[in-house]
Amino acid sequence: MPTMSDAHSRPSGDASEPLYDINAPTPTHAERARTLVNQISTGTLCTLAIEPAGYPYGSFVTVAFDSGNPIFLISALAEHTRNLERDPRASLLVAESGSADPLANGRVTMLGLCTRVDADGGRARAAFLAAHPNSSYYADFRDFGFWKLHVDSVRYIGGYGRMSWIGQVEWQTAEPDPLGPSAAGIIAHMNADHADALVLYCKAFSKATDVTSASMTGIDRYGFDMSAKTNEGPRPIRLAFARPIGTPEDARAVLISMLKDARSRLAR
Amino acid sequence: MPTMSDAHSRPSGDASEPLYDINAPTPTHAERARTLVNQISTGTLCTLAIEPAGYPYGSFVTVAFDSGNPIFLISALAEHTRNLERDPRASLLVAESGSADPLANGRVTMLGLCTRVDADGGRARAAFLAAHPNSSYYADFRDFGFWKLHVDSVRYIGGYGRMSWIGQVEWQTAEPDPLGPSAAGIIAHMNADHADALVLYCKAFSKATDVTSASMTGIDRYGFDMSAKTNEGPRPIRLAFARPIGTPEDARAVLISMLKDARSRLAR
Repeated sequence: MPTMSDAHSRPSGDASEPLYDINAPTPTHAERARTLVNQISTGTLCTLAIEPAGYPYGSFVTVAFDSGNPIFLISALAEHTRNLERDPRASLLVAESGSADPLANGRVTMLGLCTRVDADGGRARAAFLAAHPNSSYYADFRDFGFWKLHVDSVRYIGGYGRMSWIGQVEWQTAEPDPLGPSAAGIIAHMNADHADALVLYCKAFSKATDVTSASMTGIDRYGFDMSAKTNEGPRPIRLAFARPIGTPEDARAVLISMLKDARSRLAR
Repeated sequence: MPTMSDAHSRPSGDASEPLYDINAPTPTHAERARTLVNQISTGTLCTLAIEPAGYPYGSFVTVAFDSGNPIFLISALAEHTRNLERDPRASLLVAESGSADPLANGRVTMLGLCTRVDADGGRARAAFLAAHPNSSYYADFRDFGFWKLHVDSVRYIGGYGRMSWIGQVEWQTAEPDPLGPSAAGIIAHMNADHADALVLYCKAFSKATDVTSASMTGIDRYGFDMSAKTNEGPRPIRLAFARPIGTPEDARAVLISMLKDARSRLAR
């Protein structure tokens, strides 16, 4: 059963002491949201309908990102395009689909004005064609054009109980996590082949000294998350890297280095 | 390469004569759209934002259907609910995800007023809990309620070049295809184990007498679709059942019966 948002119902009196340093650096919501959208190439474009007038109209689109601003390649004949030509106010919802519980998946709504990119599309065109190479065959059809949603504010929901509004400056300056595209592979590899190492990390670097097993649940430039099986049941543990990392190779190196360190600590 | 919509570019002069009876009964767009949404339990709810005021706001939701009207179980604390309390105009986009080419997938936008269902939710509650049994644990939280989108018009896009607006009466009276949930399994089985039968159907019941192989691409209550490899390349062939069928068992029986009929015709 997922943990509900604090806003819905806060359990009282049974909060356990955290087993790790809760000041361990973690990605900001802006970073999490930029990381999420960076790995997904479809979404729902919401526009204001001409008919029925003023209704919010959702349509399926393919998307790419240029510095955090969604880029679309859409036809002047399509409903959403005709809606935008009349009123540029728009939003784009991009949603993850990994978890079996749909509401546990992250999603991001980006709001702003969506306008046609001048001339041949420039950077917007390059970003879109890089993400959707098959679209090159209709990119120059006369009725198609590149459009950009100039993000002004962002609603981020990272599953249960993790949500916030993100402002324009924070959104534009946040960098997608460099491990984003490889995180799932690293997590699967660690859980399949290095479950013993995860237990040693917990014992050496957290207060969870009674851990019997642990699984990795997340990894990012700043550290990684585990779910540790303790006498009290499963408990979350996050461990930080000494400094932010930049590549999957860095992740491998730092996890090996932390394992050596864990072994030497536990041998004392 | 997909066939583009007629509206984008109509090839001229190279249209081949259809190899089958183009008057073979096929599902209406309303039936296709009802079939599509009937098999999907998540979508994007589009509402009119309070802040930034008047923007179309897309959010991820779980959904069930009561006679074609989407039902939601949402919290009064959520943005979309607060938006709906101020302005009930809404739409819901539901999209397929089967094809590797995202724009080849079908999608349906349902527009109408979305209002809270009175009292304990009644039929709406029953429909939602049947589709989302895990939601029963928060269905009675004080901030949650059942909401219904009263569909007034529908935009259907069934992939490339198949799209239309569907009116309220047509939407409400269309029945989801009874084969919908089992179509993918039947298609996989026919292609894996009965490729020879597909060739015989083509030879006996269509003008594609030079077929070397064929694959099933769709099946519904009225008939089935194939892609047949001919000397001219792949060609679509649709064959109708003698009468609409209602179950996967009916499909099996009619496909066996048609195979016997094909063999006896070809033996003449």
